[in-house]
Amino acid sequence: MIEVIFLGTGGIKPTPERNVPGIAIKIGKEIILFDAGEGTLKQMEIAGLSPMRISRIFITHFHGDHYLGIPSLIQTMNLWHREAPLYIYGPPGTVDFIRNLLNSGYFRPSFKVIVTELVEGEEVKGREYRIKPFQVLHGIPAFGYVFKEKDRRGNFNLEKIRAMGLKPGPWMKELERKGKVKVNEIEIKLEDVTGPKKKGAKIVYTGDTEPMPLGGIAEDADLLIHDATYLTEHEKRDSYHSTVREACEVGRECGVELLVLFHRAPRYRYVEYKREALKICPSAYVPRDFDRILVGNGNVVLKVR
Amino acid sequence: MIEVIFLGTGGIKPTPERNVPGIAIKIGKEIILFDAGEGTLKQMEIAGLSPMRISRIFITHFHGDHYLGIPSLIQTMNLWHREAPLYIYGPPGTVDFIRNLLNSGYFRPSFKVIVTELVEGEEVKGREYRIKPFQVLHGIPAFGYVFKEKDRRGNFNLEKIRAMGLKPGPWMKELERKGKVKVNEIEIKLEDVTGPKKKGAKIVYTGDTEPMPLGGIAEDADLLIHDATYLTEHEKRDSYHSTVREACEVGRECGVELLVLFHRAPRYRYVEYKREALKICPSAYVPRDFDRILVGNGNVVLKVR
Repeated sequence: MIEVIFLGTGGIKPTPERNVPGIAIKIGKEIILFDAGEGTLKQMEIAGLSPMRISRIFITHFHGDHYLGIPSLIQTMNLWHREAPLYIYGPPGTVDFIRNLLNSGYFRPSFKVIVTELVEGEEVKGREYRIKPFQVLHGIPAFGYVFKEKDRRGNFNLEKIRAMGLKPGPWMKELERKGKVKVNEIEIKLEDVTGPKKKGAKIVYTGDTEPMPLGGIAEDADLLIHDATYLTEHEKRDSYHSTVREACEVGRECGVELLVLFHRAPRYRYVEYKREALKICPSAYVPRDFDRILVGNGNVVLKVR
Repeated sequence: MIEVIFLGTGGIKPTPERNVPGIAIKIGKEIILFDAGEGTLKQMEIAGLSPMRISRIFITHFHGDHYLGIPSLIQTMNLWHREAPLYIYGPPGTVDFIRNLLNSGYFRPSFKVIVTELVEGEEVKGREYRIKPFQVLHGIPAFGYVFKEKDRRGNFNLEKIRAMGLKPGPWMKELERKGKVKVNEIEIKLEDVTGPKKKGAKIVYTGDTEPMPLGGIAEDADLLIHDATYLTEHEKRDSYHSTVREACEVGRECGVELLVLFHRAPRYRYVEYKREALKICPSAYVPRDFDRILVGNGNVVLKVR
């Protein structure tokens, strides 16, 4: 079970009502950030999330609304005597951009900041998850990301255990650790005595993009957090973004559990955008800053602030 | 009459209650910013101030809480098709720091951004004001700034006019333009027929500093906005900041009209800091974000949000 916390749901620039992009995925005690627009630190403070928990930051692209919150996060970690390294990932260009950003003032983190430019399909592996970038269409080097929590074994099934002539006991711990074990000369595999696997959460975040087929990428995703900057084609014009309708079609084609309409333009007020967006795409979700979504084992639970 | 708007009153890092430093001085339609910490754009949006009105930004020093709000301000001006140049001033190092900051992403302002490293005492002149930097004690190159609005002529005084045997008429416009004029062969100077001069506002902002004598600098200031990061010596330790008591003593020595205690540390909640600070310095003012102060002709008027 993981938690997605929307730190900023708007795009382009902040409004009094919402901040620029920042999405926290909380898995165990670890926080992974996807984009960190200006003000992300303050949003985390309000949300009660500690920057010390951030292990990795994934930047979709280097437009100001997606990355300018990085320096103050690092500075705060430094203030609090962080020792663990911080990993920052992004598309080609990331290393130079972050170097310049951190050379914009008196700034000396006492822990390691490890910046990596990813290539499409390269996998970043955590103990409990894997994250993969994919190229999107935004006119500059830009990634979306697929976050996939590891699947977990099903619960022990007492009926299966008894059917094999066994009793619950310490052998179960050993079985869990090793995957197989011998009891009374019988080899038992973990899957012999457990129920169906628990599907890990799959979350896809496009960042800013024109609509593009996400079939192989977002298939079976629990959440697809998609650029839906504009309500109409007319407002979108020739910008490298998506309309609500376009995001809606991509989500439908991929069969995602929940489509989240993200990065709405400053011109819209929340209530107005939501009303119009749900006329176009009734099953979509329009998040506010600080909304949380719990995802795990195929379930999606919304927790609105 | 000018207006001072506190966009961020805290220091070091933001708290849910307050932002990092940003002070707007509004004179006519023009806005001059002193420091622009992360989130200044959003604070301006909330305060109803347009970034398009900003003519000049003065940075006290290059710690992150004082300048990281610059890029999104420029980006927003660009989005709104600004043509007027933007002037940015700061201590030695400013040019390289701003260059790196603006090279941290895809960023191409279509108007001129003119960055100037000031030397102590150098004067920046606007039509209605002058601004001068002074060196402060913060362990790195750091300035405070003196903002001085021009004094204005007193009102026309009908008694004086009549005493000179004259009647109000078109000659008064000419007198105002030229400073002197001949009426009925008598030379009249502006000061002959007007009341006492109206003193322009004087505002001194220290930025971050250890206490230092400001006698020649802040004398007769309407406002002294002074570093008062900590309530006690114990909390201050060996940081390059001031305590409330130290700020209070500096303000008293200079005979300023109103001392504003600024840049309080994140550890304090507003009510707690204010209660303790006013025990130490009862005449001081503890601003919240978005408080406004009107200053003109020797008067100071507080407008609390």
